[in-house]
Amino acid sequence: MLRSSVKLVRGSSSRLSALSLRAVNNRFSSHFTASSKLSLEDVNPRVIAAEYAVRGLIPARAEELKKKLQRHPHEVPFKSIINANIGNPQQLKQKPITFYRSVLSILQSPSLLETDVFPEDVKARAKTLLDNVGSVGAYSHSQGSSVVRESIAKFITERDNGALAHPKDIYLTTGASDAVKVIFEVILNGEKDNGVLIPIPQYPLYTAALALKNATPIPYYLKESDNWGTNPQEIDDLVSQAEKFQVKPKILVVINPGNPTGAILSKENIEQILAVAAKHGLVVIADEVYQENVFEGEFHSFKKVLSELQSKHAEFDSVQLVSLHSSSKGVSGECGQRGGYMELVGFKPEIVALFTKLASISLCPVVTGQALMEMITNPPKEGEPSYELYQSEVSAIHDSYKEKADALYAAFKDLDNIEVQKPQGAMYLFPKITFNDRVLAAARESNLLPDVFYCLRLLESTGICTVPGSGFGQEPGTFHVRTTFLPPGSEWIQDWAKFHKEFVEKFAE
Amino acid sequence: MLRSSVKLVRGSSSRLSALSLRAVNNRFSSHFTASSKLSLEDVNPRVIAAEYAVRGLIPARAEELKKKLQRHPHEVPFKSIINANIGNPQQLKQKPITFYRSVLSILQSPSLLETDVFPEDVKARAKTLLDNVGSVGAYSHSQGSSVVRESIAKFITERDNGALAHPKDIYLTTGASDAVKVIFEVILNGEKDNGVLIPIPQYPLYTAALALKNATPIPYYLKESDNWGTNPQEIDDLVSQAEKFQVKPKILVVINPGNPTGAILSKENIEQILAVAAKHGLVVIADEVYQENVFEGEFHSFKKVLSELQSKHAEFDSVQLVSLHSSSKGVSGECGQRGGYMELVGFKPEIVALFTKLASISLCPVVTGQALMEMITNPPKEGEPSYELYQSEVSAIHDSYKEKADALYAAFKDLDNIEVQKPQGAMYLFPKITFNDRVLAAARESNLLPDVFYCLRLLESTGICTVPGSGFGQEPGTFHVRTTFLPPGSEWIQDWAKFHKEFVEKFAE
Repeated sequence: MLRSSVKLVRGSSSRLSALSLRAVNNRFSSHFTASSKLSLEDVNPRVIAAEYAVRGLIPARAEELKKKLQRHPHEVPFKSIINANIGNPQQLKQKPITFYRSVLSILQSPSLLETDVFPEDVKARAKTLLDNVGSVGAYSHSQGSSVVRESIAKFITERDNGALAHPKDIYLTTGASDAVKVIFEVILNGEKDNGVLIPIPQYPLYTAALALKNATPIPYYLKESDNWGTNPQEIDDLVSQAEKFQVKPKILVVINPGNPTGAILSKENIEQILAVAAKHGLVVIADEVYQENVFEGEFHSFKKVLSELQSKHAEFDSVQLVSLHSSSKGVSGECGQRGGYMELVGFKPEIVALFTKLASISLCPVVTGQALMEMITNPPKEGEPSYELYQSEVSAIHDSYKEKADALYAAFKDLDNIEVQKPQGAMYLFPKITFNDRVLAAARESNLLPDVFYCLRLLESTGICTVPGSGFGQEPGTFHVRTTFLPPGSEWIQDWAKFHKEFVEKFAE
Repeated sequence: MLRSSVKLVRGSSSRLSALSLRAVNNRFSSHFTASSKLSLEDVNPRVIAAEYAVRGLIPARAEELKKKLQRHPHEVPFKSIINANIGNPQQLKQKPITFYRSVLSILQSPSLLETDVFPEDVKARAKTLLDNVGSVGAYSHSQGSSVVRESIAKFITERDNGALAHPKDIYLTTGASDAVKVIFEVILNGEKDNGVLIPIPQYPLYTAALALKNATPIPYYLKESDNWGTNPQEIDDLVSQAEKFQVKPKILVVINPGNPTGAILSKENIEQILAVAAKHGLVVIADEVYQENVFEGEFHSFKKVLSELQSKHAEFDSVQLVSLHSSSKGVSGECGQRGGYMELVGFKPEIVALFTKLASISLCPVVTGQALMEMITNPPKEGEPSYELYQSEVSAIHDSYKEKADALYAAFKDLDNIEVQKPQGAMYLFPKITFNDRVLAAARESNLLPDVFYCLRLLESTGICTVPGSGFGQEPGTFHVRTTFLPPGSEWIQDWAKFHKEFVEKFAE
């Protein structure tokens, strides 16, 4: 028991006191003065520096408004918050694919195998997975279950016209964000001179993860007027110049289909990018999580294009590529299940061993998320009991995405001071908004960036929650808004158009 | 299309070639020479330095033997691999708790609510969770679903005799390993002078994560002869001396119940440790993932003891504590589901904001794992339909753990050259093995540490896979083996005893 023979000596900023440790226990003979708590100067400055706009100021204000709506609905000029800030389809009532979920139910309760609740192919799939993992409650192999990696390798091989993928090169991950962090952990050594080429605009996970690793982001600008195309010559020039600034470019990030731009890279473009990577020994991170979300043109995987180049030109043999995929996007939209994988291509065995070691330190990715990636890459086949329902669910989601994207695009095209590129893929539009001097002055007065000012007004007036372009990066002097086209219905699109017209009128010069 | 006007210039170690970028695309005018691949000197030396013994040399050899067993069973002197190297209960056929899994099944397929497959309280719980998260496929709040955090806060408050816990201080995590990495990320700034006090022996996640953060581990030795007790005076002395070595201790890690030792800290011991933390401003990480695995004595949470001290002595107000819990241990053993939480106690709001920001960069922890933590902290109550089955399953697992721990303890106690402490908690025994000069010489000849030599021979002779004490750290000159007591049956215990006797005989001087 403690005795209370304690002398208090209070300081100004924190409680400093002398406590006899002897009072706590007789084995101690010293006295101590209590130390103060951690302040910002005591902790990791890289965490302080990191920013993540998708869950930043505007979404935080949306959360407040949501609570206000529940308590005082009449004090808010709209009926609900429209979360167009994040690609989170099931939050917006998108139904999950029945086949996936049925199998996952059995994995949780294998006794369902003895009922007739689910069709035979669902049961068979669950049995295959259970035979391999034993239980979804057991740690799996750190890289992921072998049966899951085999299905993924087969999927990649078929997708890439026969360019072989091997289960040993597949690493299951906790979503794709986790993969990015692992790649950065292995390749970046914590020194500021480590450079990573990132597209601007970019998905802000990249700048956040780079801030945490103390690396230098080297922005290459996507060409808005060219439908957000990539200019490999610019990347080549940047790398050549980097040395002058004591920066060593190590990684080149490509997001295809693009987030937030929705653009899809042509095959020719990918060839050029790979040539730049080969020339400079850059590791390519191909963020291909939206590979199923394609409306216009065709998706070419970096792996496929690389394999074709390698079959003709030995100089591409040195290219090192990591391709990312995820359960969160596509038509599955299973964000909360945290499934994902990365495929390592072209690394030396000693580097691969480091990826394996990091995976083992994290024990294993969530096993149900692994099972989900197995099903996403190995869906029901024609003739199987679940095929028709699966096919109709997938088509319905695809069609609805296309329809919503077109509707949003059409609405923006009609509005003054807004320019928007035709959506090709992913889940986003990234319209450019031109602000006149009156808007810029009003934003300055509110101490907000102009795009933040616009998004905040949009939110306060309509409940539509978006992310300002500044969270993704944009050409200096230009302003954008990222919106998903996922929210159901078209009413919110009309609300936005109405808001925009009023905004333009209000600030007319 | 690529033309093949390519001049090949091959180097010795890698293929260097000059390729006309113009050949890939006419917009380029420069030529390039392909760069070589990443080698170990190009990547993060901290990843190279990190080690994780639980999945190290011995388990890797066990995997090879497992494959050999399948192909050439007659070339291996045992019938199966006994995985006593990792606390992975469901790999060893432990049945999951039916209530948890039934609810998780419904979360995956809400249509099961309309069947009578599951009892009413299972359905009600699933409905409560679904009402809160919408779908387990949607990203939740980054800290975790509010309903989950409320149940956890209530559980902690009850466990700690009314010391209040708040949902806002709870962060759901991907197992407890993830929590450790997040805490290190926030508090350690990447400089070598950041010190972290860790118990020796320790769970090797800590040294691995510290290597990745470039921090200095400061070992404090647990007292084997005192049933692996902690000596706070030693910690106090170490911190006082650290300055002389230009090391600033920032964090104190305590594992209670202990891994790999199985020891449980007394309340008095915890008070002393908290006094040292208060005196030196150390953040305490209380790794309490084995809090349900208690056979002897009583588990006292750091939060509870801290609250009691704070109610009497203002000098404990400055203590900053993070308590970890997980779905992987206890009686649930749901390792592959990757559930976990941390509770932050006593941090300044600006530091808490950094934890929140990091959580948002990771989007959200797996939602099914969150649901599992809700159920673990809020199990069926007396009178509810699932209560009896739940209670009997929990008791059976508890009893079986106790029984296995006792059987293993009894077997070791009878053996020559082995000393073992009575198991109090967790899932492990950490017997000390004394090797004579002949064993030490034989190990040296095999280029192995003596404990690795022993574990490898044990594995090759019996199939029993364990982890050498050197993977956890041990007093210089002493040697140990960590074994879980989870494998079913007692045959493997007899096999081990037989092996040990033969080993001692073989190397008798």
